Amino acid sequence: MSKPLILITNDDGIHSPGLRKLIKIANTFGKVVVVAPDGPRSAQSHAITLETPIRCNRIVIDDGKQIEFSCSGTPVDCVKLALNKILDRKPDLCLSGINHGSNSSINVIYSGTVSAATEAAINEIPSIGFSILDYSFNADFLEAEPFINRIITKVLKSKYSNNLCLNVNIPKSISNQLIKGIKVCNQANAKWVEQFEERLDPMGKRYFWLKGDFIVNDSSKNCDENLLKDHYITIVPIKYDMTSYKEIEDIQNIFKNE
Amino acid sequence: MSKPLILITNDDGIHSPGLRKLIKIANTFGKVVVVAPDGPRSAQSHAITLETPIRCNRIVIDDGKQIEFSCSGTPVDCVKLALNKILDRKPDLCLSGINHGSNSSINVIYSGTVSAATEAAINEIPSIGFSILDYSFNADFLEAEPFINRIITKVLKSKYSNNLCLNVNIPKSISNQLIKGIKVCNQANAKWVEQFEERLDPMGKRYFWLKGDFIVNDSSKNCDENLLKDHYITIVPIKYDMTSYKEIEDIQNIFKNE
Repeated sequence: MSKPLILITNDDGIHSPGLRKLIKIANTFGKVVVVAPDGPRSAQSHAITLETPIRCNRIVIDDGKQIEFSCSGTPVDCVKLALNKILDRKPDLCLSGINHGSNSSINVIYSGTVSAATEAAINEIPSIGFSILDYSFNADFLEAEPFINRIITKVLKSKYSNNLCLNVNIPKSISNQLIKGIKVCNQANAKWVEQFEERLDPMGKRYFWLKGDFIVNDSSKNCDENLLKDHYITIVPIKYDMTSYKEIEDIQNIFKNE
Repeated sequence: MSKPLILITNDDGIHSPGLRKLIKIANTFGKVVVVAPDGPRSAQSHAITLETPIRCNRIVIDDGKQIEFSCSGTPVDCVKLALNKILDRKPDLCLSGINHGSNSSINVIYSGTVSAATEAAINEIPSIGFSILDYSFNADFLEAEPFINRIITKVLKSKYSNNLCLNVNIPKSISNQLIKGIKVCNQANAKWVEQFEERLDPMGKRYFWLKGDFIVNDSSKNCDENLLKDHYITIVPIKYDMTSYKEIEDIQNIFKNE
């Protein structure tokens, strides 16, 4: 059997340690092509570039056997460009990450990491977004690595696509608690309660910076937030159909005479 | 009863005719505050601005009674800033649009218009994203206007939120076919088949522009694409929970020994 073709991207940028680690892991599985943003694109969600041209060029960063392209666009642009211009066939797998920071719960909606994987899923490519709950540049991936290996192995073996992206979050490595295992679950009911810091620039003009607290309103055992707190790796199957089917009837009642 | 407070935004920018029309309609319902991007932000999805400061300033564009703010951020930034810094209370309704162009089907995932309304929905504010299937700057809103009025009336009356955003798409006005009515339905199974045009800049360096064809793979009667073709206005209830619940068990089976 020929080796699988694996497309890798992220939203922290092509030089991010999380991406470099994911490339090293993926190189042991097959032929790896990286198309990743040339710099940070956090919280870019499913944004695509329509108003400006996109640059995308070959780049060599280390001596690994992967082939890499650095792209001026968003994470979703990277996937679209890879599928349409760079790869000579549909990849067997798309990996995004490893994101430095959580993409649990409602963060999927803001995340460039998960959106890139979702874009691959839309194109019927088995895809996984990896995030670790460690925001530091020097995040420790040692404990996560064998789990990432197992998740990739199982997804490659299952060939399961069905337009799903698997949103994988990994607890932060701490000294007194090992990762307990992997749980497939739903996204927690949680949200950001935000504030904007108001500042003045050197010209005396006002500007704002966003900051916020993450609030979990979910006591269920099978949601990602609570399983992560309990030190499990979580996998949430994500689909791009945002229709809330169970509420269609309620809304139909509101508009029943139209 | 006090007049409702209505927040308005869009992704085509504060000077867009679709937004100006929506402001005029909303002014007849209550107190209107506009916080909209200072220029086009199409296809910005749920992106938020974390790496750069956000500017947001009062602006007067016409002699309407609305209060307006022009914002350097994304559509979702506009909603967050409005809720956290500009409005003195939670609005009774958030309207986004009228977008010049379709946000049916999978376009919800790319759309700044729908994402802005979804952000309001996350904050438990009844919210509606309006789009018309007419990409021209001079889109004709005449036939749509009474329907938009009725939709706003019903949503204000029902006070239904449940974290839902209503994604409303309106057929393009054509001479020989009136709008038949309003249908509440699900998003169609459709996707973009894309190409990137490859060009050289004046320095001889390569760049790419995205272009694509929209392909509908859905024959069901109750999906937005097919109802729009049949000249109905469509309303799809959208929720930010992207978990694909029906496929959790399949994925659990793949990882059952972990």
